[in-house]
Amino acid sequence: MKATICVTLKPDVLDPQGQAIQKACGSLGYEQIQDVRQGKFFEIELDASAVSGSEAAERLLAELSAKLLSNPVIENYRILSVGE
Amino acid sequence: MKATICVTLKPDVLDPQGQAIQKACGSLGYEQIQDVRQGKFFEIELDASAVSGSEAAERLLAELSAKLLSNPVIENYRILSVGE
Amino acid sequence: MKATICVTLKPDVLDPQGQAIQKACGSLGYEQIQDVRQGKFFEIELDASAVSGSEAAERLLAELSAKLLSNPVIENYRILSVGE
Amino acid sequence: MKATICVTLKPDVLDPQGQAIQKACGSLGYEQIQDVRQGKFFEIELDASAVSGSEAAERLLAELSAKLLSNPVIENYRILSVGE
Repeated sequence: MKATICVTLKPDVLDPQGQAIQKACGSLGYEQIQDVRQGKFFEIELDASAVSGSEAAERLLAELSAKLLSNPVIENYRILSVGE
Repeated sequence: MKATICVTLKPDVLDPQGQAIQKACGSLGYEQIQDVRQGKFFEIELDASAVSGSEAAERLLAELSAKLLSNPVIENYRILSVGE
Repeated sequence: MKATICVTLKPDVLDPQGQAIQKACGSLGYEQIQDVRQGKFFEIELDASAVSGSEAAERLLAELSAKLLSNPVIENYRILSVGE
Repeated sequence: MKATICVTLKPDVLDPQGQAIQKACGSLGYEQIQDVRQGKFFEIELDASAVSGSEAAERLLAELSAKLLSNPVIENYRILSVGE
């Protein structure tokens, strides 16, 4: 069973790396790009036989995201997909 | 108009950070987690009035991903969503 | 002229990625590793002819670090070396 | 005992994030910045009583860097400091 999770800086946290990319877009002529924010992306492989159903999988992934993948003070996480 | 893009290491490229997270899962009792791979996640805000339609937006985002967000030799990118 | 700069999370900011690496160390038998914190590292090449002396270079690098490389609310930067 | 380690992309590996920062420097008027490459930085705390001398510490850190902190195919590591 595969899952994807993203971890992003909270909206009020400054993201200098994202801003650098946005400025680089401008200098390359991509003026349509108004804002860029950079986060982390995780692809996770779960042992389906050890998780009973996608609801249990989501609970496990949420726990993992909060404990191991993100800093809850400055970051949010979002489970993007669970499946297969 | 908002878009999200992920950039991941190609499957044959070793990901020590992802492996560290997978091992940490094991030591915390999350034995169901068999594999973790870490990538980058981008949230992009486009000026909708400067892009004609979502097809043009996807073309622009693909160009941007290939030139500015990823290293094509070791990474893949995927446009996860374009909308609103 | 080359310079190196590191950007680290402030001591009171939780670092889940660093913790994952520390736990992975433990599970691999490296029990001597008590703490790991992960930051960013920048190698910068300056046009020496456009900067008058290493003091001016340090000022420029400090400005750059504060504006483009770090988020002053959650991160510290340190110029590790300027030279050659 | 504290140590610092940096992990950088090998010179022939393209670094789009570093290039974005370099371009952003230009667009902010920092024309003196000719090249930027982004890497990772690790601060490590070792149990001094479990490591006999700084030579043994360096050996341990080198092993750790090669196994857990870097991908030897695309990255180099450098132990910047061991001490205290």
